[in-house]
Order: sequence, then C-alpha cells, then structure tokens
Amino acid sequence: MTSARIALDVMGGDAAPQAILEGALLATRPGPRHVAAARIVLVGPQATIESWLAEHGGNPGFPIQNATQVVEMGESPAAALRSKPDNSISVSVGAVRKGAAAAALSMGNTGACVGAATLGLGTLEGVRRPGIAVTIALAGKPLVLIDMGANVAPKPADLLAYGLMGSAYANACLSVAQPRVGLLNVGEEEGKGNDLCKEAWGLLKQSCPGFIGNVEGCDLFRDRADVIVTDGFTGNVALKLMEEMGSFLLGMVLRELKSHQAQWAGEALAHVKAKVDYAQYGGALLLGLKGVMIIGHGRSDATAVANALWQGAQALDRGVNEAIQRTLAAAPAAS
Amino acid sequence: MTSARIALDVMGGDAAPQAILEGALLATRPGPRHVAAARIVLVGPQATIESWLAEHGGNPGFPIQNATQVVEMGESPAAALRSKPDNSISVSVGAVRKGAAAAALSMGNTGACVGAATLGLGTLEGVRRPGIAVTIALAGKPLVLIDMGANVAPKPADLLAYGLMGSAYANACLSVAQPRVGLLNVGEEEGKGNDLCKEAWGLLKQSCPGFIGNVEGCDLFRDRADVIVTDGFTGNVALKLMEEMGSFLLGMVLRELKSHQAQWAGEALAHVKAKVDYAQYGGALLLGLKGVMIIGHGRSDATAVANALWQGAQALDRGVNEAIQRTLAAAPAAS
Repeated sequence: MTSARIALDVMGGDAAPQAILEGALLATRPGPRHVAAARIVLVGPQATIESWLAEHGGNPGFPIQNATQVVEMGESPAAALRSKPDNSISVSVGAVRKGAAAAALSMGNTGACVGAATLGLGTLEGVRRPGIAVTIALAGKPLVLIDMGANVAPKPADLLAYGLMGSAYANACLSVAQPRVGLLNVGEEEGKGNDLCKEAWGLLKQSCPGFIGNVEGCDLFRDRADVIVTDGFTGNVALKLMEEMGSFLLGMVLRELKSHQAQWAGEALAHVKAKVDYAQYGGALLLGLKGVMIIGHGRSDATAVANALWQGAQALDRGVNEAIQRTLAAAPAAS
Repeated sequence: MTSARIALDVMGGDAAPQAILEGALLATRPGPRHVAAARIVLVGPQATIESWLAEHGGNPGFPIQNATQVVEMGESPAAALRSKPDNSISVSVGAVRKGAAAAALSMGNTGACVGAATLGLGTLEGVRRPGIAVTIALAGKPLVLIDMGANVAPKPADLLAYGLMGSAYANACLSVAQPRVGLLNVGEEEGKGNDLCKEAWGLLKQSCPGFIGNVEGCDLFRDRADVIVTDGFTGNVALKLMEEMGSFLLGMVLRELKSHQAQWAGEALAHVKAKVDYAQYGGALLLGLKGVMIIGHGRSDATAVANALWQGAQALDRGVNEAIQRTLAAAPAAS
C-alpha cells in the first residue's frame, strides 16, 4: 500500500545521515512502535544509503529514492530551495506529491521544510497557511501547541484554522474525545491582548467547537486545554524557551544533588528528563497541507527519528488529514 | 530627605495587608538590605495600618498616608481607576507626583499600576509608553527583560526606548559595565521575524549602544545578553510560562526524589528553588516615567516585599531615572 508510506529525509539534522539511518532501522524492530521497512522510503544519495545499509546488516526492505543535494541547517530556506532543486527535503515532499508516499519526514532546516511542503503540496481548502503543531506532555496528558513558527505574522482567520486543525489532530491522533481549545493571551478575560488576539477570539468563539477562551503562559503546565493556539512568533519563542529551560533547570538540579554525594541522582531524574526531552515527542506536524509533513528536531538522535516515524505512521493510519478536512468543512462559517 | 522615600501600597497583592506590612517591618531590620523606616510611606486605610502596627510592637517610624479604596486583583483597571479615585495605587502614585515620595511600590493589579503611573506621572522625554522591566538571574548573572506586559502592541520606536532604558537600568542599578542588548526573535539572522522586529532591529542597530542583534527563546538561559527587548505580549507569555515551568519542574523532581526515599531532597533543592523563585527578584520596574514605579508580584510574601523595598531604595540611590534620561538624550537620533 504505497499510500501509507513515509518519505524519510536521510540528510536532515545535526547527526545526519548516521542518526537518521539508525533511527529507520530502530523503527523496524518488533515492538509496540514497530513500523514496517516497506513503509519507509529513504530519501538521499543512493550510493551513501546503500553502502551504509550494507555495513549494517543489509537493507531490510526500505525503498530508496535518490536525492543528490542537501539544504544545510543555517542556509536561507528560500535561496536553498531555488538553487538546489534536487535537495532531499524537496525530493521527500515530491514523493508525497506524486503519490509514492503519504507523508514526508525531515529533521532538517525548518524553514526549508515549511517552504518546500507549502509550495509542493498546497494547502487544504479553507487553509491559507499551514501551522506547525508540536505535542508536549508535561502535565501527563498530551497538549498540542500550534503554530510553533511556520508563520510569524498570521491573520485572525489563520488562528481559527489552527484551532480547528489542532482539535481534529488531537481527536484523531491523540484520542482526545472533545478537545478543549485555548487562545494564548496575556490574561483570561475576553477583550485582552493585541488586535490579532481580539479578532481571533471572536472567530474561535463563533466557529471552533470546544473553544474555552483565553489561556496564559502558565496554563501550558496546568490541565486547562488540549490545544493551545498562538501566532508563530510567540509560539517559536515559547518553544525554544521551554526546551532550554528544561535542560537548564535539570542540569542545575543534578549539579546540586551531586554536590550532596547523591551519585544515583542521574538515574532518579531520568523520568523527569524523559518528560522534558524533546526527542520523546517525535516530530512536529505541519498541519493544513494536501499531504502530511512532519518536521523533526535538528538534534534528533536515532530514538527520536524512530519515534517520529512511528508518529507519522500513526497519523496516516488514523487519517489525520481526512479528520482535518471534515472538521474544517463542518465548522460554522465565520461571518 | 523626602525625595528618597518609597510609597508602599499596603493593600495590593494576594496576602495584603498582612504580608505587605510584615515586609515593611522586615525591610527595616539591620542587615545588608536594610531600608530606614522613615523612607517607607505606608499607603492604605490609616486606622487599619495603625492598629496592625500597634499589635506588632508599634510604629518604628513609618510615615502613613491614608487611602480609603482598593483596586481588586481581578478588576478592570480602567473602570477601577475611574470609579475609585482614592484607591491605594493611585494615592501611592500621587505621593510621587506631589514629591512626598520618589518611588511607588505596589503588589496589586498590574494593569491598574501601569495605568495609574502612566497617567499620574507622565512619560520621560523621548518615551511614548513605559515598559515593565523584570530582572531574572537564572544563568548566574542578572538579565533584564523588557517589556513584560505594559504594552501588548508597541511600535518599533517603543522597542528602541526599551533597549535604551533597559541598558541604562542594568548599568546604573545592576552594575553591568557595558550592557549587551538583544532583540527577542525567532532566529539569529538579520531580517528574521515579524514587521515589528524587522523595523525595531534597524532602530536598535542605529541608536542603541551595545546592541548585539537578535536572540532567541533559548538565550534567556545562556549568557548572551544583559538586556532582552520584546513586545509586551510575547514578554508576558514568556514570563508566566517561565515562572510556572520552574515550580512545575521542581515539583516533579521533588516527587521523584522522595519516591527514592531521599527525604533530604527538599533541602538540597533549596538553592535551585531560590534561583527560580520570583520573590528573590523583588519587583518589576516600570521604566520611562517621571518617577519610579515598582510593581511587585501579586503572590509576594513578606520577604518579597522587603526585597522590593530594598530594590526600590537602590534604584533611587543609584539614580535610575537620571541614568535613563542621560542615555535617552545621548542616543543617536533614529532617522
């Protein structure tokens, strides 16, 4: 069934291609998060991929799609996509466009992923711009944050679309029965915030089922909402802040405990670290496109790659895009 | 010397007036953070203040200014300031306007503090709107964040003023020799971000000494800048997020350690908790006014009140507003 394949960009991320290929192998291992090798299309320089697999026990059945160029992490996305048409991100997206895969997954340059997927796949009916949805689970339940940086200057209608898509995603892929959708703002009361928030509040109130109103920065750690909607500027700042604060604080705690001769502290904190660890969340889904694009973290190791592959397989098997389209079509028209 | 007095709103904050009055007494104790009682003007219902002091060993020399009304924490600032002209926030600001004090300090409704101070004191030459400056010290050195929520829709010129004022404050009050000023953005490169950031980048580059360019959410925990400038929307979301994430993560760590029978863990984590604890930072300074306004956290206990009083005394003794005016006047004109 080619429609359920995932095109994996082997060249994206800080530790590519080594960590990506290891992650692909890891995903094929038997277990609750198993993904069949036949579902994973490896996209990158064919010779490199084949020789790596030969050195690691042979190809267990991965289809391979050749791509000769690479977008570097620091490169300008627009310039790179123009000057390198055969880059592994664009070729991965192309596999989805042509029907050779149903989802693309890259740990590479986020801007290039958003650009290539938006241009290559086009947006769903009713969606002007896609949004990056990141799922965290700090408070013990999944929480979908959207948009984490695809669009730093969205319009109110974009925030409505983020709410609807995030809700459909939480319901279809994370088994949240009736997702509560909150708008990230500077206070709880109606009428708070900048013009974008005030207008988006009205649209969400009118057209987004499960909208609970404004939430604040502190509510990311309280069980207040299942989906939190924000603009890509605030979302990107908040996400990078959370990620660094987690490892910063735990590092501080660990040094403190070790100074008390608690050498076992590292082990004791493993549970906490796992919850804060980005790699456990898999990838971010770019919602709103005619096809599924998953953007993994640039620092992904093999475990993170395998988790992202499993997450991608789940999203496809649970029909994430069909759910989004149904939700968008059923939403009361914003007047 | 009446010019160095601080008008303390006794009725602001979740635990007022008890915690505020205890904090005032605490501040007068001998020690490195001592503030003379004669410098602290207690503002609130005179009879309540006098009877509380009588029950706690008598008045050690606090001047008292009667104020009969209170703005509640959840009240709409604009409506409250209109309908309650004799509220303790406005009377504290009035004491500064009339020269009976040089600074006002309130742990009450933030919006009401910003509104009352802006209307009551007016802005400094070259400042359109004041900005809330919060100092954190997570990475071991003080870091000034401005604006943390006074203005959710600033213009590029406001962000330039925040940079200049934050720099003057860091230099005059926090002993940072040549403050590095960063603009909070979604990437490091020039040209990143929304229109506000792009324009503010140009103004800061041209007119703010020590401007180092863009910084990201993760840079709040790395020693990259001494002052980080952002709009009040992003700043407010980030501040509330950090505050809650700190106590959330440490709570998780503590539960984990206690499940390993490490009963001494609470003590071991006290150092970390102190660094994350809001109360240690004292209050937020509202910079850009003809007078000093300090806004404390609503959850302030007596220690936080005493710290904020000491911080206020320091700001006055070090001439924070004179430093800000010199810096604003010396900045190359933005063209």
